[in-house]
Amino acid sequence: MTPVDPVDLTAQLVRCPSITPEEGGALVLLEDLLSSAGFECTQVDRNGTSNLFARWGRKGANRSFGFNGHTDVVPLGDENAWTVDPFGAEIKDGFLWGRGSTDMKSGVAAFTAAAIDFVRDTPPDGAVILTITGDEEGDATDGTVALLDWMEAQGEVMTHCLVGEPTSPNHMGEAMKIGRRGSMNVWFTFTGVQGHSAYPHRANNPLTAMARLMDTLASHELDAGNDHFDPSNFAIVTMDTGNPATNVIPAQCRAAVNIRFNDHHSGSSLTEWIDREVAKVVGDTGIRIETKVKISGESFITPPGELSDLIARAVKAETGQTPEMSTSGGTSDARFMKSHCPVAEFGLVGKTMHQVDEKVPVADIIQLKAIYARMLADYFA
Amino acid sequence: MTPVDPVDLTAQLVRCPSITPEEGGALVLLEDLLSSAGFECTQVDRNGTSNLFARWGRKGANRSFGFNGHTDVVPLGDENAWTVDPFGAEIKDGFLWGRGSTDMKSGVAAFTAAAIDFVRDTPPDGAVILTITGDEEGDATDGTVALLDWMEAQGEVMTHCLVGEPTSPNHMGEAMKIGRRGSMNVWFTFTGVQGHSAYPHRANNPLTAMARLMDTLASHELDAGNDHFDPSNFAIVTMDTGNPATNVIPAQCRAAVNIRFNDHHSGSSLTEWIDREVAKVVGDTGIRIETKVKISGESFITPPGELSDLIARAVKAETGQTPEMSTSGGTSDARFMKSHCPVAEFGLVGKTMHQVDEKVPVADIIQLKAIYARMLADYFA
Ligand SMILES: [Zn+2]
Ligand SMILES: [Zn+2]
Repeated sequence: MTPVDPVDLTAQLVRCPSITPEEGGALVLLEDLLSSAGFECTQVDRNGTSNLFARWGRKGANRSFGFNGHTDVVPLGDENAWTVDPFGAEIKDGFLWGRGSTDMKSGVAAFTAAAIDFVRDTPPDGAVILTITGDEEGDATDGTVALLDWMEAQGEVMTHCLVGEPTSPNHMGEAMKIGRRGSMNVWFTFTGVQGHSAYPHRANNPLTAMARLMDTLASHELDAGNDHFDPSNFAIVTMDTGNPATNVIPAQCRAAVNIRFNDHHSGSSLTEWIDREVAKVVGDTGIRIETKVKISGESFITPPGELSDLIARAVKAETGQTPEMSTSGGTSDARFMKSHCPVAEFGLVGKTMHQVDEKVPVADIIQLKAIYARMLADYFA
Repeated sequence: MTPVDPVDLTAQLVRCPSITPEEGGALVLLEDLLSSAGFECTQVDRNGTSNLFARWGRKGANRSFGFNGHTDVVPLGDENAWTVDPFGAEIKDGFLWGRGSTDMKSGVAAFTAAAIDFVRDTPPDGAVILTITGDEEGDATDGTVALLDWMEAQGEVMTHCLVGEPTSPNHMGEAMKIGRRGSMNVWFTFTGVQGHSAYPHRANNPLTAMARLMDTLASHELDAGNDHFDPSNFAIVTMDTGNPATNVIPAQCRAAVNIRFNDHHSGSSLTEWIDREVAKVVGDTGIRIETKVKISGESFITPPGELSDLIARAVKAETGQTPEMSTSGGTSDARFMKSHCPVAEFGLVGKTMHQVDEKVPVADIIQLKAIYARMLADYFA
């Protein structure tokens, strides 16, 4: 039988306009392909979002290797700035071009192609499970989480899982991810008393409190990082007032911050830290400071071991490089997967993801399929 | 002869809709009245703004007492919130109501009435000069400054000048002003490098620099004040970014501050202080900080002496109170007058100035005329 061509499959997926949360035909296409290849497929939909669960082999097998990915893509951005059809999947100069070509239709195509060929050519003693979501780039509340909820209800289990997101900054094989830093946002509202700047004793300036609190928080070194994690990072992302009158002390102002934190912290320990600093700034100033906290994900790590070794061997064999075990970057669905089974991430070079003229080297897609194929063979050997 | 009624004159002036820079008939009305009373009147107009110079007595007299005031008024604000016709000059509950009734058509009416009665009943050996401008509430560039320029060119001289602006916070006679703090604004633009908050090492956050600089400046005690002046005051009036994306570190943000400063400082000494602090924050961060400085007025003081004694005696005689010698509050045209001759300010209670339903107690207008009349009698005695 002919092997599944991951480049052609990537092109077919790029042609599906699956801007989050639109399914765009991508999951249906994959379901057809996987069903024909002997995978038991289930559409797991929640709140109008489509997701696909596909298993080859016996439910509850002792060795059940999982791949996870998403077919939804981010919006086009400045549509007029694209030099190619964003859904054209044009191949030129050695690249396949289009929205989602890097993040991560090529990754989905590579593991789908690898899985189909593997179970057909060397049927393993175990199961291969694909979980593919249409809600990763959006709120991610009805995507991988919905799949995991459904799996738990059904008694579906993976023993290890590989998320196929882009992981390397510059060259194929440079890095895998064995964890991620946590991420949280805090919104602050400072309320004082409006007044004329010539009569400051009648006013109570919330901006003084905002400057003090933001300066205090931003200048605190959270930690120095550790073997697995970069230092945690605190970033003020906005401070706003909207007061055009230079002789008026305004009544209110606002700020928002984002924290990327490693395993020295948790969402709640950081919330407590902020609450303490807020209380200090409030002191007896009479300024009211309200906070709204959103923890997008706690930090997590899959300690180096069977899964990272498996990835490293396959990458080394195909690229000659030993991938670094990174935990940098933003959040991914690995943050949900980690409560189900050991999880790690390996995929393409992420350089052009989310950008105009997103593109992927054709050779990288082929190499990625080969790496995933080696991992499967090795896992079930 | 009947004395001029300052309440009726205030009412006539309030009925002139002289929202700055409109003349609204107010200066013409005063010119007619003063001309009939033997004052030599000149319209001193500049760039379409009307101002009135009126002198009784000989030009260049050894004793030439000046009154200064303005007939322009601030806009109505929320027009629907007024419970009276803002230009109706209605008298009810013991108040005369309307825009400009406090600031400062009543003051102008009181000194005009006092001056006319005084020169008619007890012609002094000297001159009485009124300078009345139609550009105090606006940019003030074509008002008192234009009058002073014209006076210098004409060889017109005042030996002392009283500005009739409201000066008391709560009760008639509480306070005169013998100086004013200076005022300056500084606008800051902070420019760094935009980036994703998950990759802070690729970005350079201008907000961190803004928080640091504003916190540093705002927490510095400029001085503790002195016998004549309140402490100088630094107020952040706005900080803005306009970044809605919590995962984006923005490239730019802005702040503006207002400083009210006493004679421990000058506009240039404060500019130098800010420049030094900016340089410290910039350090080697790579953040660019641009500043734009506008000095609205330097601080000034007319040391206690002949003029303040004159005011104090008149106020004490009419109200029983000894007025405090204050330098608080915003700027006034006294900041221009001080380079011509010793200047001080005395007028009504300022409570409702610039507000909706601005009003003035009828009794206060009458009392203010009596105070101004006593000052004239005393000055030329
Ligand atoms: Zn992705
Ligand atoms: Zn005024």
